[in-house]
Amino acid sequence: MSSEQVLPERPVAEAPEATEGGEKLSKKALKKLEKEKEKAEKKKAQQAADAAKKAEADANDVSKGKYGDLPMVGATDYKPFALKRRRLYDLGDVADGVEVLVRCDVATARSQSAKLAFLNLRDSLDSVQAVVAAGEDLSRQMVKFASTIPAESIVDVIGIVKEPKEPVKSATISNRELHITQLWTVSRSVPQLPIQVDDAEQALPSDAPGAAEEKAESGRPLVGLSTRLDNRVLDLRSTLNHAIFDIRSGARNLFQDFLRERGFLAVDSPKLLGSPSEGGANVFEVGYYGKKAYLAQSPQMYKQMLIAARYKRVMELGPVFRAENSNTSRHLSEYTSLDLEAEFVDDYQEVMFLIRDLLHHVLSNLDSKFGKQASRVRQTYKSEPFKLPAKPEDIPVITFSEGIQLLLDAGIDASFDDDINSTQEKQLGDLVRAKYNTDFYILTEYPLACRAFYTMPKGADLNAKFSNSYDFMMRGQEVLSGAQRIHDHGMLVARMKTLGLDPENPGFKDYVQAFSYGCPPHAGGAFGLERIVLNWLDLKNVRLATMFPRDPQRVTP
Amino acid sequence: MSSEQVLPERPVAEAPEATEGGEKLSKKALKKLEKEKEKAEKKKAQQAADAAKKAEADANDVSKGKYGDLPMVGATDYKPFALKRRRLYDLGDVADGVEVLVRCDVATARSQSAKLAFLNLRDSLDSVQAVVAAGEDLSRQMVKFASTIPAESIVDVIGIVKEPKEPVKSATISNRELHITQLWTVSRSVPQLPIQVDDAEQALPSDAPGAAEEKAESGRPLVGLSTRLDNRVLDLRSTLNHAIFDIRSGARNLFQDFLRERGFLAVDSPKLLGSPSEGGANVFEVGYYGKKAYLAQSPQMYKQMLIAARYKRVMELGPVFRAENSNTSRHLSEYTSLDLEAEFVDDYQEVMFLIRDLLHHVLSNLDSKFGKQASRVRQTYKSEPFKLPAKPEDIPVITFSEGIQLLLDAGIDASFDDDINSTQEKQLGDLVRAKYNTDFYILTEYPLACRAFYTMPKGADLNAKFSNSYDFMMRGQEVLSGAQRIHDHGMLVARMKTLGLDPENPGFKDYVQAFSYGCPPHAGGAFGLERIVLNWLDLKNVRLATMFPRDPQRVTP
Repeated sequence: MSSEQVLPERPVAEAPEATEGGEKLSKKALKKLEKEKEKAEKKKAQQAADAAKKAEADANDVSKGKYGDLPMVGATDYKPFALKRRRLYDLGDVADGVEVLVRCDVATARSQSAKLAFLNLRDSLDSVQAVVAAGEDLSRQMVKFASTIPAESIVDVIGIVKEPKEPVKSATISNRELHITQLWTVSRSVPQLPIQVDDAEQALPSDAPGAAEEKAESGRPLVGLSTRLDNRVLDLRSTLNHAIFDIRSGARNLFQDFLRERGFLAVDSPKLLGSPSEGGANVFEVGYYGKKAYLAQSPQMYKQMLIAARYKRVMELGPVFRAENSNTSRHLSEYTSLDLEAEFVDDYQEVMFLIRDLLHHVLSNLDSKFGKQASRVRQTYKSEPFKLPAKPEDIPVITFSEGIQLLLDAGIDASFDDDINSTQEKQLGDLVRAKYNTDFYILTEYPLACRAFYTMPKGADLNAKFSNSYDFMMRGQEVLSGAQRIHDHGMLVARMKTLGLDPENPGFKDYVQAFSYGCPPHAGGAFGLERIVLNWLDLKNVRLATMFPRDPQRVTP
Repeated sequence: MSSEQVLPERPVAEAPEATEGGEKLSKKALKKLEKEKEKAEKKKAQQAADAAKKAEADANDVSKGKYGDLPMVGATDYKPFALKRRRLYDLGDVADGVEVLVRCDVATARSQSAKLAFLNLRDSLDSVQAVVAAGEDLSRQMVKFASTIPAESIVDVIGIVKEPKEPVKSATISNRELHITQLWTVSRSVPQLPIQVDDAEQALPSDAPGAAEEKAESGRPLVGLSTRLDNRVLDLRSTLNHAIFDIRSGARNLFQDFLRERGFLAVDSPKLLGSPSEGGANVFEVGYYGKKAYLAQSPQMYKQMLIAARYKRVMELGPVFRAENSNTSRHLSEYTSLDLEAEFVDDYQEVMFLIRDLLHHVLSNLDSKFGKQASRVRQTYKSEPFKLPAKPEDIPVITFSEGIQLLLDAGIDASFDDDINSTQEKQLGDLVRAKYNTDFYILTEYPLACRAFYTMPKGADLNAKFSNSYDFMMRGQEVLSGAQRIHDHGMLVARMKTLGLDPENPGFKDYVQAFSYGCPPHAGGAFGLERIVLNWLDLKNVRLATMFPRDPQRVTP
């Protein structure tokens, strides 16, 4: 193991000597030259003195060879440690007195005195306090080295696990601390960071008036969303974000597993389309080999075509693109959609109940498997735990008309003919919560006029007022929209013509044709993955559930 | 259950009477009017006669109420059958004499005589022969109805399972046939199909001269790829395609499960980028709210930024976009990439071996779990089963230089300084197969000059000739490209400048900056999901492993 690697200093350019045949130098130039020579000699002398001092210090440094910057991992002079590595999060279970080797982040480094430094070491959601104390076996030089490591650097640490006299409040592992015996930097951070990771641990400032005055516990002002997103790599290092994205990844996996076990085929529909689908509004246009293509707003038509191709049950988890110029806390220009579509035999509610069971499975497993993460998030963004009935069968299914009646009964303006807006949705969510003690319910049979053209009218009657449709609600916000689809070619064409849509339009043609070759009755829906996380945790802004959000104002980093 | 649903005929427009105050009609017009009247009367008489005939036939039809078109599923007059439903693929295990109800496709319908019709009924990969035989309890009308159901219609069938005298060769379930007692169409196909599903069961015509003359067993000419893709919904109904996409979905799941069990976080990086990455070549441009954005060619920079954000192990399965104008059997403009990136402790081969174990896991599980599907595909596209060593440790790891030497020793032109092309790759695959008896091997330490700028030079030495890189090969084709990445900010900047790349360029800035905040050593790679399927099955064209392929010539359906 090499000791501290010293980068070669930039060589001082030798001043040019006045040469024969060269121009005669002016007095001024000569004087300058002399001064530079003097300076260079002084510097040399200083360097020699420093080197001597360092050599003496090194000779006196009992910790020599026990700290410094490691050679780059991958370099020929990098040698692995012999000691077995541990993960930081295990240290709480290591017995007092055991020597361990861990790789982790330096969250903070500070010197108490010339003889004592404290490091807060972090690894994902966990942290531990480390002590560097000068003594017979550990030099003051090493203490100084430790206390000057820039925050966010990565280190390899060897130390003895000790039980502290009092629980350590500043670390998640409070029943242990690490008494460092070796300390090596693996990758140094620059000393000045554009935002502190600790700032990223705090809540966003609220939209409330006077919010600019809100302060974190540290006394520093709260950092706004835009600054955080501009520095997302640092922002994402917070335990807050690690918790959120653990939950998001977990939800993703829970969805897939449940559907796979029920025979759903995982598919990837194309994102580049030859024609704008669904009328062409809010579609991003792409240059495609000198022609135009369009980004898919959803896999809707493809998943239905796959049902027509007899794939029975299909699911897709992938990006969708919406060129909506809306700057709200709920909309993104690109997000992750969980789409599913399935045949049914007699009744579209067979599929609706399957999706209900799916979401119930996801939410109840988030509860049981991501408690640590959820409580980390709730520490910063206070919210009520999500109220979920114990059994899927207990989730209320309410018709749209019943929902409107609930609103009217509560004195809230609403109409049996129009869709409800997000404010009414929220109010209805509160009413349902009060009545049924649940944050998850299903609203069915929306007015046909409010749904997409491919939605099956109630009773398969083109003149019906309502439709075989459903939205799933979490805390009064829609997280899934779905319906039985029109599987009959003649009925689909008739419905499209009623709405002034041309079934021969290149954006519809292949889709419409698919139903002329026989198609089983089917239903489906689409979740916004971010919205599940958002509403389960009650995060207020969908960008917080997205690693690198995209909206009309932001397409970086 | 209603009997055959009769659609109302289009009403015949009544001819206008000459009215008072109206214009007087010419003789010609009057004559025309009379003729039309006559015609209408004749038609009425004919309709009455037909109705009478039908009523008589109905009265004599012992099968009345046992066949016809069902009301649309979802309509108020649709009623579920009381009998429990079975899946067609289970019929091979049903005892002789049992009555069953199944929903399935009519693959073919033909009448043997006025008293006997045969249906080939299909459900995904399985098919069974059904018999409709006139007799005391079954009318000739019903036989006629059965024999005239258009192929590809969906039916509900009730029948008695019987053991046939001889095994049925034309169906996958050869030990049973179904004696139909009730037959109802759920969704009718149009009678004329643009391609037959049976054509989609055949191989593509080969590229060989005279291929246009190649015929399927049926004697029909082989249908070309373009026609199949134009009619992809019908094409995808073939058991061949069901088998291929079962395997693709299976591979997708196997990848995810393996990585998840090893702590990889499932992430979704943005596909819309503010600047073209990696130099800007082959990037699709998108109109983004009056500005420009670009489609991601890979999640490379994002997965590395997530490593810099301390996510340790990340994976993504999603679309990537390549605006390469190459029309080969191996390239697509949009495909599904499996990207992964992981920290390592001492040596990049820790990650390389993890990926090796991953691919070995996927391939050996495809072997054990998708035998039925693989043999269906191999029936059409003959190929040797994929040679896979029993243990991952037995997979050969060969340096690039050793590979070049193998080529040179075999008298094949190759250079230690240049990358190998796809022909040399294929030849090297053959040599490795001959020497090690495997279709999967790893080639490491490519020349630094052939790899992306972020690749770690061997020995972390910017002047090194080789790099800490690896490609994974299946049947002599690259399916994964990967490497240790430069995690050191200073080294990355130096390397970029050597290559004439500007680290301050908006396409690089956030990425490069991420490493200045400390970053663990890491390595990763990216698989093309379609290429795994392509090479495991030896399919010859990557479009066959893609549901809706995109290339410079095709962006529909």
